[in-house]
Amino acid sequence: MPTFSVFTDVPLAQKLEGSLLKTYKQDDHPNKMFLAYRVCLTNKGHPWVSLVVQKTRQQISQDPSLNYEYLPTMGMNSFIQASLELLFGKHSQVIMENRAGGVHTVGDSGAFQLGVQFLRTWHRDANIVYIISSQKEPHGLIFQDMGFTVYEYSIWNPKNLCLDPNMFLSMVEQIPSGSVLVIGNIIDCKLTKSQWAKLMSIMKSKRVFPFFDIPCQGFYTGNLEEDTRILQYFVSQGFEFFCSQSLSKIFGIYDEGVGILVVVAVSNQQLLCVLSQLIRFTQALWLNAPSTGERIITSILCNPALRRQWKHSLKEVVKNIMLIKEKVKEKLRLLGTPGSWNHITEQSGTHGYLGLNFQQVDYLVRMKHIYIPKNGWINFSCINANNIDYITQAISEAVFFTKGPEKYLPKHQK
Amino acid sequence: MPTFSVFTDVPLAQKLEGSLLKTYKQDDHPNKMFLAYRVCLTNKGHPWVSLVVQKTRQQISQDPSLNYEYLPTMGMNSFIQASLELLFGKHSQVIMENRAGGVHTVGDSGAFQLGVQFLRTWHRDANIVYIISSQKEPHGLIFQDMGFTVYEYSIWNPKNLCLDPNMFLSMVEQIPSGSVLVIGNIIDCKLTKSQWAKLMSIMKSKRVFPFFDIPCQGFYTGNLEEDTRILQYFVSQGFEFFCSQSLSKIFGIYDEGVGILVVVAVSNQQLLCVLSQLIRFTQALWLNAPSTGERIITSILCNPALRRQWKHSLKEVVKNIMLIKEKVKEKLRLLGTPGSWNHITEQSGTHGYLGLNFQQVDYLVRMKHIYIPKNGWINFSCINANNIDYITQAISEAVFFTKGPEKYLPKHQK
Repeated sequence: MPTFSVFTDVPLAQKLEGSLLKTYKQDDHPNKMFLAYRVCLTNKGHPWVSLVVQKTRQQISQDPSLNYEYLPTMGMNSFIQASLELLFGKHSQVIMENRAGGVHTVGDSGAFQLGVQFLRTWHRDANIVYIISSQKEPHGLIFQDMGFTVYEYSIWNPKNLCLDPNMFLSMVEQIPSGSVLVIGNIIDCKLTKSQWAKLMSIMKSKRVFPFFDIPCQGFYTGNLEEDTRILQYFVSQGFEFFCSQSLSKIFGIYDEGVGILVVVAVSNQQLLCVLSQLIRFTQALWLNAPSTGERIITSILCNPALRRQWKHSLKEVVKNIMLIKEKVKEKLRLLGTPGSWNHITEQSGTHGYLGLNFQQVDYLVRMKHIYIPKNGWINFSCINANNIDYITQAISEAVFFTKGPEKYLPKHQK
Repeated sequence: MPTFSVFTDVPLAQKLEGSLLKTYKQDDHPNKMFLAYRVCLTNKGHPWVSLVVQKTRQQISQDPSLNYEYLPTMGMNSFIQASLELLFGKHSQVIMENRAGGVHTVGDSGAFQLGVQFLRTWHRDANIVYIISSQKEPHGLIFQDMGFTVYEYSIWNPKNLCLDPNMFLSMVEQIPSGSVLVIGNIIDCKLTKSQWAKLMSIMKSKRVFPFFDIPCQGFYTGNLEEDTRILQYFVSQGFEFFCSQSLSKIFGIYDEGVGILVVVAVSNQQLLCVLSQLIRFTQALWLNAPSTGERIITSILCNPALRRQWKHSLKEVVKNIMLIKEKVKEKLRLLGTPGSWNHITEQSGTHGYLGLNFQQVDYLVRMKHIYIPKNGWINFSCINANNIDYITQAISEAVFFTKGPEKYLPKHQK
């Protein structure tokens, strides 16, 4: 045995997240439920996958013309192009002018890891980042590990039970010059056009660098173009930005972790410089990004028939989630639960705030074995015909039986 | 347009490698050849893939019991276990004692990126790394980017045309205390058991931390156990170490980039601490490693019949490469090329030194359009029945027509 050990002083690391999931798993109550899964579930409770994916996967696995050689470090050209067109639209200004590009990234964190490494090296004035609370882990921690001071923000107004554009605006008004702003839920920002204009003007005057996060394009309104329209507005106003574009989630191949770090620059020349530096970082990070997910997605996006089927499947997901939300709201009303519960259907996407206070959440976890995060931000696709009665009954009880400040549940607020 | 741009001062990055490949691609000579591919080629010139992979891939794509949910951040347990058993043997001391573990890593660089991040944080005394020249790019650069001083070493003796264990030993004798030593080609080190013992004793006294790189277990001798036996010796001597274990290459699924950062600690307790910290880094790097490659490999390793077929296919690869080397040597002799050329068959694996000096290499590239790196380190699997005559004729010409120092080609040296 050596007298010397490198590992002697290494402590056990604190777990980032998953303690809720861990507690849930250890619970042996027959009715236990977990409403904070990261993936979108079907109404049978299985992880959702676009039907067209399975067919495409089989075709690819049987294609004799494919070999398994290394793909380009930055990703297949066709993949990058198809993804950029998805994000900005085929005929968008920024694509025509060759000012948008991207690099294939790996997993849920890859695009942030790559983007933050770049900013650390080439944008040294930026030391502060503002990130929405729900993304503090793990994306905020990536900034933190690289020396940024991380501030969390929230746009959920627990008093009025709504997503509050004014909270967003006043946060941006307070941001120090030269900060990075991670904008992670464009649709739920609920800003009007003039509010966006005001926001951009503040950001420009303070030289705030926008870092968008688009994890589920299409899952908000069911309309791919609608979900990212604001990006084009930023482009038209001459902004440079990064965007973490995740593609695996919207095809339901979560385990493939396919993403892109999208770059918008003011000219093609600058874009090429930025991309060349990103490739340099990518070579150190993983050198070759795995290809299966990239191939499946490219095959679907580049084939009009498959693409149509996929778009249809996205719409179905959104329709299903809206239906669940409507039902939850209706059942809560039928149970005579105080409050309007309109806020449930006013939020887009799979995830949203239930609008419960800490005590009510605690009641659900401890008394009803329904596991949800402290802020009450849940994945609505975890609710289905089998568990909706138990869940709504439990929420109703939680509201009746806990002493929450009554003002947290305004009646029929619009 | 904004008055301010983050990207203004970003220069075009220098390309790491691939300039040889680029020149090759731009060359329009009909006989041009590239002998430095990273992947193993079949004798038809296609990237080699184990036949059993294709079958397994199709089975997986049709398996209705699989979903595409996120897999564990550290990798599937069955995958890690099967890979560790491959590396150390099922009944090895280190597995029995629960002192070896690993984390699923992505691409060719992932395991190094993760390991170096760990060393930077938890082994701050280490500032110097020794790495074999052929791995300077990109692995050496990962160390460099994280503040290490990187020294290259070589064990190829161009005078005697052999892999020289004494060069390795004298390098280790000169290493400063507390350095990291990347050992990347165990089999080609050609150390005797007593030389290994001496080396380990020096490493211990200098507290040198070993970081092994096993990119192609089985591709050296054709025997999986034989190729990594020395790791067990290090284990038995009480060493802690890291090992970058690449699995995709030995299955021929280069584009899946499946690897593991293997950790050997002195106790299970320390191992768990190290793994917990590695997972923390992994969450920032990619959070979820893609699964297709992991699933294919695990399916094969855990199924005795598939595993047998795969092992057989590895043996065939090695047999084929040996045959090519024998033929190259024989043809060079028949052409009356000065020198014994035994060094070609004395090297293991796909890659090896041709034993040419810079002038001779330059002759091959410029006059014969045969693209090989300056040090003459080529991928022998790029040579096949269709190009062997042209290549050996060209080498022979290069030796005859250039004025290299004659001593570089000793006659019938053993």
